[in-house]
Amino acid sequence: MLSKSTAKYIQSLQHKKFRDETGCFVAEGPKLVSELLNEKIFPCASVFATKKWVTENPGLSGSYSVEVIEAFELEKISALTTPNQVVAIFKKSILNEHPDLTNKITLVLDDIQDPGNLGTMIRIADWFGIKNIYCSPHTADQYNPKVVQSTMASLGRVNILYTALPAFLQKTTIKKYATTLHGEPLQKTSALKEGLIVIGNESQGISNEVVQLCDAQLSIERIGNAESLNAAVATGIILYQLLHA
Amino acid sequence: MLSKSTAKYIQSLQHKKFRDETGCFVAEGPKLVSELLNEKIFPCASVFATKKWVTENPGLSGSYSVEVIEAFELEKISALTTPNQVVAIFKKSILNEHPDLTNKITLVLDDIQDPGNLGTMIRIADWFGIKNIYCSPHTADQYNPKVVQSTMASLGRVNILYTALPAFLQKTTIKKYATTLHGEPLQKTSALKEGLIVIGNESQGISNEVVQLCDAQLSIERIGNAESLNAAVATGIILYQLLHA
Repeated sequence: MLSKSTAKYIQSLQHKKFRDETGCFVAEGPKLVSELLNEKIFPCASVFATKKWVTENPGLSGSYSVEVIEAFELEKISALTTPNQVVAIFKKSILNEHPDLTNKITLVLDDIQDPGNLGTMIRIADWFGIKNIYCSPHTADQYNPKVVQSTMASLGRVNILYTALPAFLQKTTIKKYATTLHGEPLQKTSALKEGLIVIGNESQGISNEVVQLCDAQLSIERIGNAESLNAAVATGIILYQLLHA
Repeated sequence: MLSKSTAKYIQSLQHKKFRDETGCFVAEGPKLVSELLNEKIFPCASVFATKKWVTENPGLSGSYSVEVIEAFELEKISALTTPNQVVAIFKKSILNEHPDLTNKITLVLDDIQDPGNLGTMIRIADWFGIKNIYCSPHTADQYNPKVVQSTMASLGRVNILYTALPAFLQKTTIKKYATTLHGEPLQKTSALKEGLIVIGNESQGISNEVVQLCDAQLSIERIGNAESLNAAVATGIILYQLLHA
């Protein structure tokens, strides 16, 4: 029987304020929760699951609690439209606060607002072997439930840091590439061994201050008429070209 | 004053059944509605907007009705989390039922389920100048409100047809490329002048029957660890390579 205070605590983790205060976040669904438990990058605090899920996962062990709950209780604590067997609380973890960025491609996100886009970008980074993502302070929170769900467990494999971009870009000597609508055509760019690739906000693009701190501008050439490409799609195309060209 | 029956009619268009029966669909928000009104590809039937929007758009004219409504009425008929000034009803339009596919790249979607993904793919197609998209009958409906909103007005610039894929693929002599996880590395493919590019369902990929009707398989090589790429992101990368290589 799920206590009222526990349910309230889990619901509170939908909000960044409480995630920051407690250092915890929520992940849901059998696939994502199993992967995060197996990878052990984020320490698990508690698992709340239906009897079915607990029976099907007999190998559960660790320092976390496992509570069997009823379907109606799962509904109360789930943020999914269709609650799916298990909700787990994990502890946040910063993998590396001062990663070495030499000989690597690094993503830099300037105010990405949509949690689905951020989650998709983290998954793209993981696909292309990108180790580090720097985010401006106003970028969506990596532990936002929608981000967590859309990363599909890539969250633990990419080191994500939030910092004021101008100061960070001024400090680093690594070459910085802004992705804009009027830069060098991407297909003329050769494969890159090292660089910071800056992606801008969904509607405003990269801020002027940040563009001016970049060494070059890259663009995906438009052939048709759409006004813009989705920011995550653009990120995928740019990383593909820079890594596979 | 919005009548109850009108509000009910607009709400009913959230459902495919009623869109099919009436031949109409809904678009919302100042930017999207203005673009669709200007492009005139879909005949407009009615506009329901706040006084502010009507005042700011004095050039409205055509065979459609314009009704000024209150904010609370807009809330009733809007499907957006944050209703935004205007809801308009447009009539569906099939641009071309038998397009010429020679000397063109054409997208073929096998059961894309997520409306956001389909909308993003339509926008990508429009960006890269793709004229035609064939969809399996179980692909999300192009007039689903979430698709309409996420296409950002590209909907009218791409010809979208729903048909049973096996019969269609058997009939056409144009070369067919399946995008799979174990095909030829995409970066080894030269630019294509003509071809059908098949994209599969978000979790199942392309059905076996359809893969077997294809002439070649293409893959985006993975460098890191993510299990898969988002289907719309994969579509963007593939079209980029085939059009810009």
